[in-house]
Amino acid sequence: MISVNILGAGNVATHLFKAFQKSENISVNQWYNRDISKISTYKNEVSTIDNISLLEEADIYIIAVSDDAISKLSQSLTNKNQLVVHTSGSVSVYDLDKTLRRGVFYPLQTFSKTASVDFSNVPFCIETIDKQDLELLKNLANAIGSQWYKISTEQRQTLHLSAVFVNNFTNQLYRIAHEISDIQNINFDILKPLILETANKVQHMSPYMAQTGPAMRNDKKTIKKHLKSLENEQHKAIYKLLTESIKKTHGR
Amino acid sequence: MISVNILGAGNVATHLFKAFQKSENISVNQWYNRDISKISTYKNEVSTIDNISLLEEADIYIIAVSDDAISKLSQSLTNKNQLVVHTSGSVSVYDLDKTLRRGVFYPLQTFSKTASVDFSNVPFCIETIDKQDLELLKNLANAIGSQWYKISTEQRQTLHLSAVFVNNFTNQLYRIAHEISDIQNINFDILKPLILETANKVQHMSPYMAQTGPAMRNDKKTIKKHLKSLENEQHKAIYKLLTESIKKTHGR
Ligand SMILES: NC(=O)c1ccc[n+]([C@@H]2O[C@H](COP(=O)([O-])OP(=O)(O)OC[C@H]3O[C@@H](n4cnc5c(N)ncnc54)[C@H](OP(=O)(O)O)[C@@H]3O)[C@@H](O)[C@H]2O)c1
Ligand SMILES: NC(=O)c1ccc[n+]([C@@H]2O[C@H](COP(=O)([O-])OP(=O)(O)OC[C@H]3O[C@@H](n4cnc5c(N)ncnc54)[C@H](OP(=O)(O)O)[C@@H]3O)[C@@H](O)[C@H]2O)c1
Repeated sequence: MISVNILGAGNVATHLFKAFQKSENISVNQWYNRDISKISTYKNEVSTIDNISLLEEADIYIIAVSDDAISKLSQSLTNKNQLVVHTSGSVSVYDLDKTLRRGVFYPLQTFSKTASVDFSNVPFCIETIDKQDLELLKNLANAIGSQWYKISTEQRQTLHLSAVFVNNFTNQLYRIAHEISDIQNINFDILKPLILETANKVQHMSPYMAQTGPAMRNDKKTIKKHLKSLENEQHKAIYKLLTESIKKTHGR
Repeated sequence: MISVNILGAGNVATHLFKAFQKSENISVNQWYNRDISKISTYKNEVSTIDNISLLEEADIYIIAVSDDAISKLSQSLTNKNQLVVHTSGSVSVYDLDKTLRRGVFYPLQTFSKTASVDFSNVPFCIETIDKQDLELLKNLANAIGSQWYKISTEQRQTLHLSAVFVNNFTNQLYRIAHEISDIQNINFDILKPLILETANKVQHMSPYMAQTGPAMRNDKKTIKKHLKSLENEQHKAIYKLLTESIKKTHGR
């Protein structure tokens, strides 16, 4: 049995709490948030606190607060026996107070408050300063059915950047398609199966191998036609730049 | 029962043939290709021909050849009773020979020769010059379990452009993430669940609502850090442009 204290009450903290509660091998001892009203719904399930000095022993403290607040919050931890991890993609493991046993438990996934999370689809990037602590984080990930990968701070920061490309930027391409179609009264639903298939394809094939389309074929006629039909200058610039990028990747 | 003749032997023609063969409500009478060796594997299942003048009656002729070849091939059709459709996203319905009953049966999906296709995930954009012919294409789509949408040539060309954004360009963003991660010896598998979830999210939420990340929050510190860590100038330019695009969409 792994005992855990959670700090923070945002998306990550809340989804982790729910997953830990479901696991037979994890017990959540205490849940801290500076604003206790955010966790009061759970007060019958777990000891909720807003006074950090009331934190008691646990195998792992999980700091799931905003990136900017991680370092400072770690400095207010007085109990030095437990492993203290944060859940951020971009904060260094060394930003945690150096008197602590330190680590990182970063879920590489996008969370929102409303949708429920299936942790078998959430890979964790784990890192510890003391090698022996790694085992504890592996067990924690396993106990909620998640994959884990040993990832250094530098690698994690690169993954965080990669995630911006495959999540935020990809989503913005969906948004642009939505805008373009709306102008012509086209139902965005028509594009949804293609969006899914595009993501599905690279689950078992490299993006390099999966590429198709006018840029890949260097089909100048279609590219010209597309550029002409795009009215928004920013959309035009994105079309040009990504077309160049595809051509470069594939030596066209 | 709908009878069909197929012209062409590429990805689309081959997947359509297989789907039609499985359907109880469709019979494929003849399959034409200029190079008959491409369809010889199927000669026991269907009448295969390479002489276009041998084409006989059928309810629908489906021209699934390269965009540039559609118009010319349609001119060589002498049998004027059947509905003749092409399967292209960008070719106008008027590019088919004007002596014919004309239409479009465009599958908005990405096909590759190897992977099998589940046609319940392939929406068809249908269009006919004669309103009465629409029913036939609806029935054809229904018979292989596909959704259909009545779409004009102008709308279809916009959808084709939108497909470049959500398919080709999105795939290139995956590719860039792959490149960035490779440099740091990071297993690309770690990013795959996020890629899928990003596509899943917009199945029931608008891309506008689904957006998160540093550009959305206008988190200047992270954006600066990311730009600094990108070594490839083209990747940097893409990062900047898509960040600007997100900021503009969300009024940041
Ligand atoms: N959301 C994601 O998709 C995602 C994915 C992977 C990793 N992460 C990482 O997980 C961590 C938490 O993210 P999140 O999305 O859960 O954040 P969030 O929903 O915005 O919640 C932030 C939490 O941090 C607390 N907090 C903020 N400033 C604080 C301070 N100065 N002192 C104490 N607590 C403070 C907030 O407390 P109040 O409730 O009192 O405001 C809130 O509970 C971050 O490091 C983030 O980078 C997030
Ligand atoms: N692939 C997709 O993902 C996709 C998706 C939606 C729509 N489409 C559209 O579907 C149509 C077919 O695409 P595809 O991907 O199946 O193409 P493909 O795999 O490249 O196959 C092209 C076919 O066209 C034939 N062809 C080419 N030039 C010809 C000519 N001058 N005369 C007669 N036949 C000729 C080829 O014959 P040979 O075998 O003799 O070379 C071949 O059978 C196109 O309009 C395309 O825009 C494709």
